Amino acid sequence: MLDRVVTQLAREQERAVERLCDLLRIPSVSTDPNYAGDCARAAEWVAGQLRECGLGVEVHPTAGHPVVLGRYDGAGPHAPRLLLYGHYDVQPPDPVEKWTTPPFEPTIRDGRIYARGASDDKGQFMCFVEALRAWRSAGDAPPIHVTVLIEGEEESGSANLESFLVEHKAQLAADVAAISDTAMWDRDTPAITYGLRGLLYFDVQLHGPNRDLHSGVYGGTVPNPATELVLALGRLFDARHRVTIPGFYDDVAPVTKQERSRWAALNFDEQSYAQSLGLRMLRGEQGFSTLERRWARPSCDINGLYGGYMGEGAKTVIPSFAGAKVSFRLAAGQDPRKVEHDFRNWLQGQTPPGCKWRVTQLGAAHPVAVATDTPFMAAACRAVEAGFGRPPVLIREGASIPVVATFKSTLGIDTLLIGLGLNDDNLHSPDEKFEVESFHRGCRVYASLLAELADTARRSSGSA
Amino acid sequence: MLDRVVTQLAREQERAVERLCDLLRIPSVSTDPNYAGDCARAAEWVAGQLRECGLGVEVHPTAGHPVVLGRYDGAGPHAPRLLLYGHYDVQPPDPVEKWTTPPFEPTIRDGRIYARGASDDKGQFMCFVEALRAWRSAGDAPPIHVTVLIEGEEESGSANLESFLVEHKAQLAADVAAISDTAMWDRDTPAITYGLRGLLYFDVQLHGPNRDLHSGVYGGTVPNPATELVLALGRLFDARHRVTIPGFYDDVAPVTKQERSRWAALNFDEQSYAQSLGLRMLRGEQGFSTLERRWARPSCDINGLYGGYMGEGAKTVIPSFAGAKVSFRLAAGQDPRKVEHDFRNWLQGQTPPGCKWRVTQLGAAHPVAVATDTPFMAAACRAVEAGFGRPPVLIREGASIPVVATFKSTLGIDTLLIGLGLNDDNLHSPDEKFEVESFHRGCRVYASLLAELADTARRSSGSA
Repeated sequence: MLDRVVTQLAREQERAVERLCDLLRIPSVSTDPNYAGDCARAAEWVAGQLRECGLGVEVHPTAGHPVVLGRYDGAGPHAPRLLLYGHYDVQPPDPVEKWTTPPFEPTIRDGRIYARGASDDKGQFMCFVEALRAWRSAGDAPPIHVTVLIEGEEESGSANLESFLVEHKAQLAADVAAISDTAMWDRDTPAITYGLRGLLYFDVQLHGPNRDLHSGVYGGTVPNPATELVLALGRLFDARHRVTIPGFYDDVAPVTKQERSRWAALNFDEQSYAQSLGLRMLRGEQGFSTLERRWARPSCDINGLYGGYMGEGAKTVIPSFAGAKVSFRLAAGQDPRKVEHDFRNWLQGQTPPGCKWRVTQLGAAHPVAVATDTPFMAAACRAVEAGFGRPPVLIREGASIPVVATFKSTLGIDTLLIGLGLNDDNLHSPDEKFEVESFHRGCRVYASLLAELADTARRSSGSA
Repeated sequence: MLDRVVTQLAREQERAVERLCDLLRIPSVSTDPNYAGDCARAAEWVAGQLRECGLGVEVHPTAGHPVVLGRYDGAGPHAPRLLLYGHYDVQPPDPVEKWTTPPFEPTIRDGRIYARGASDDKGQFMCFVEALRAWRSAGDAPPIHVTVLIEGEEESGSANLESFLVEHKAQLAADVAAISDTAMWDRDTPAITYGLRGLLYFDVQLHGPNRDLHSGVYGGTVPNPATELVLALGRLFDARHRVTIPGFYDDVAPVTKQERSRWAALNFDEQSYAQSLGLRMLRGEQGFSTLERRWARPSCDINGLYGGYMGEGAKTVIPSFAGAKVSFRLAAGQDPRKVEHDFRNWLQGQTPPGCKWRVTQLGAAHPVAVATDTPFMAAACRAVEAGFGRPPVLIREGASIPVVATFKSTLGIDTLLIGLGLNDDNLHSPDEKFEVESFHRGCRVYASLLAELADTARRSSGSA
C-alpha cells in the first residue's frame, strides 16, 4: 500500500511544488494588520487543500487570524490519531531591498525555492498535506485518524491559539502530535528534535521628560531616556556574559551524560559555524560549549532598539522616551512566569532618576522536553529513515515552538518534531529558502509516518 | 543725535511690526527643497530692506540658499566696524495642526507675534535692520561702519557659510560682531551670553553577523550587535554620571569665582525647572549645580537608538547591526578634535568580540568664550540697559552657535550675543512667538549699540 502512495508522490512532484508556490505568493504576514486580508486568504487556501485530501474542514475565526481545522475519522476503532500542526503565517519580509528576488514571488534557483515562508513554515507543513493527498490519490484512505491544525498567528506569538485549544480540547484529542518547523542536523543528516527552549519577550520603554528637548539647552541636566535605557540594560550581563538577574540560572536542568556523549558524536564545528555567519569570534555565557549554550542554557537578546532621532544625519534631541525589545530563551527547567517576575523586579531596581518604565510582555512559552524512548518516537525515526535513507539524530533546538508546550499542557500529548529545514534557510531573514529535495523527502516521511503509526498500534494491540 | 533716532523708532513702531510680519509671511524653510523659491524670495526681501537703510547690498548665491551682504562704509577713518549676523531661514512648521493660527500668517495676540521664525531669527535680526533704518530716517548716517550678513541655511546646518566666510574674509573684516539669536534670562531680565558649548555629533554603528539571525536558533552563541552596543555604550558613564573616556574632563576650563557668584545671584530655581519638564528628579554629573552642568560642564547624550525590530509587537531577531546617535556638548577649553580622537580610541577599546564599529562624525563646533572685560562688551551692556531700562546679566548657554566660533577662527573677532528672545518662545515648536515689546526694545538696543561703539572708539583714540 505505502508503495503505491510513494509512487503517487513521485508522480506529483512538479504539481506539489506548484501548489506550494501558490501558497507562498500569499503575503500572510501576521504581525502587520495591513496583511489581515492575506492571512484570511491563506487560511481559505489551506482549507481548500485539506478538503481535496478528503478531510472534513472548518475555518475558525479567532480574535486574530483564523485557525484551519481538518479531520479524518475513517480509520477504524483501534487506529491511533495523529495531530498535525503547522502555521500559514510568515514573518515580515523586511528589509525587502535585501532580497535577491521579491519575497512573495517564489523563485527556484539551484534546487531551492526562495520566498518568505518557504521553510518557515509553509514548505514544511505542505509536506504532510501532500502526503495526505497522495494517500487519497493512491486510492486508499489514511491508515490512522488524522487531525490537521494550521494556525495563522505563530509569528506574532499565537495569542489566540491556547484559548482555541482549550475550547476545542475534546475535538482535538489525539495520541501524539507531529510538527515540521525545525531543522535537519545538516544537509545529509535528518534530525528529530526532543527539546526546545522557552521564550519570554518584552517591549521595554523608558519615559522621562514630558517632551523632546534640545540637547544643547538641556544636555547634562536632565535624565535622557535613550542614555538611561542603555545604562540600565547595559547592566543585564556580567563580565562572564551571564545574565545578572538574581536566580536567573537556578532552575536550569543539567545536561545528562547520555546527551553530552550524543552531542559530542555530532562533531559540531564551532569554527565553520562562526565563519558561516561572517564572525571571527563567537560570544556567549562562559564555561559552556556552543551547542550547550544553544540547546541547554538560557540566553537574553536585545531584538530591537528605538527612540529619538533614527534617520540619516544629525538631530540634537533628548527624546522623551526610548525603547528596546528584550527577549529571553529559557532552558529546560525554567518557568517563564518566574523569570518574568524576576526580570520586572530587576528592572525596577534599575530605574533611572526621574524616569518610568513601561514594560509589556509580548510572548511567553515554556521550554519543552519530549521523552525519546517511546514507540511513537521509534515510529517517527523509522519514517524519517524511509524518507531520507538514513536514521535521524536526536537533537535539541534553541528556538521555541510554544504550541508544543501547549499541546502537552492542554491535550496531554507529546509532539514529534521532524525537522525538514536547514540551518541556512534564512528564516526571518532576506532570501529565505527551502530545498526542493527536502520538500519531496518530507512528503515521503509523512506518507511513511501514517503507515508506521498504524503498525505501532497494531503491534501494541497484538502484544496486549 | 541718538535721541532723534530713538524718537524716530518710536514713531515707526507700527510700521516696523508690519515690516516684520511681511517677512514672517515668507515660508523660508531651508531644510525642505520645496521652499527653495521662498528662501530666495526672503533673501531678496531682506536685501531690499538693507538698501532702504542706505547700505550697499549684494545677494550672493551659494550651493544652497543665498547669503545677503550689506555694507555701510561712510563713518570716517577711525570709526570701528560692526558685523551684524542673522538668518532669514526658519525651521519646518510641523506639526502644523498644533498651531493655534497658521505658522506663516503672523498673528498678534496678547502682545505677542505668533509665526514660525518670529523669535528664531527674523524678529531678532529685524531689530538691527530697524535700528539702521531709524539712524538713516533721523537724518544721520550710522556713526560706525556696519556690515550685515544674513544667511539662509542656519536651520539646516549652515553647510555653505564657512566657505563663504573664508572666501570673503577681507570683505568681512570687522572689529566685533553682534548676533541676536539667544534668549533673555527671564521676562524681566535682559542677558548677554558670553559662553557657548561646542558640539561633537556621531553616528555610531556596531556590525556583527553577516545577516539578521533568529534569536532562538542563535541566541546565546553569537555576538548580538544590539545587545553589544548597549553593553559598550553602557560603559560611557560611571556611577557618578561622569563620562568615562580617559582625559575627557582634563581641558575643561574651571568656573571662576566671579562667575560662580554671578550665577548664584541669578537665583535659578532647580525645582521649577524640573517641574516644567515633568520630572521629579534631575540628572547629571555629580558635584555640580544644574546651571554649571548646563553652561560650564561637557555632557554626553544618546540622541537616537535604532536597530533590529522597531515596530509594534515582537520579532525574534538578532540584528546584523545596531546604531546610536551619540553627541557631546563641549565646555570652554575642550577641543572637538581631541575629544573625537579620544572617543574613537575609547570605542575601539570597547569593541565586542566578533563585531566592528562604523563611526561617522556628523558635526563639530568649538566651544566659545567671549571675554567680558572688553570695551565692546561694556558698550553692549550699556546699549542693552538703554533699551530695557536695566542692565543685562552675563550668562552662558548650553547650546552651540557654530558661526560664533567660525567668526573667531576666520575673522579673528569676538561676538556679542544679545538675547532678545524668551525661553518660552517655542523655537522649533508649534506656536513660536516673539514679544512685541522685546522687538521694540531690541530696536532701541541696536540703535544705542551703534552710538556706544562709536563712543568707545572715540574714548580709546582720545586716551591713546
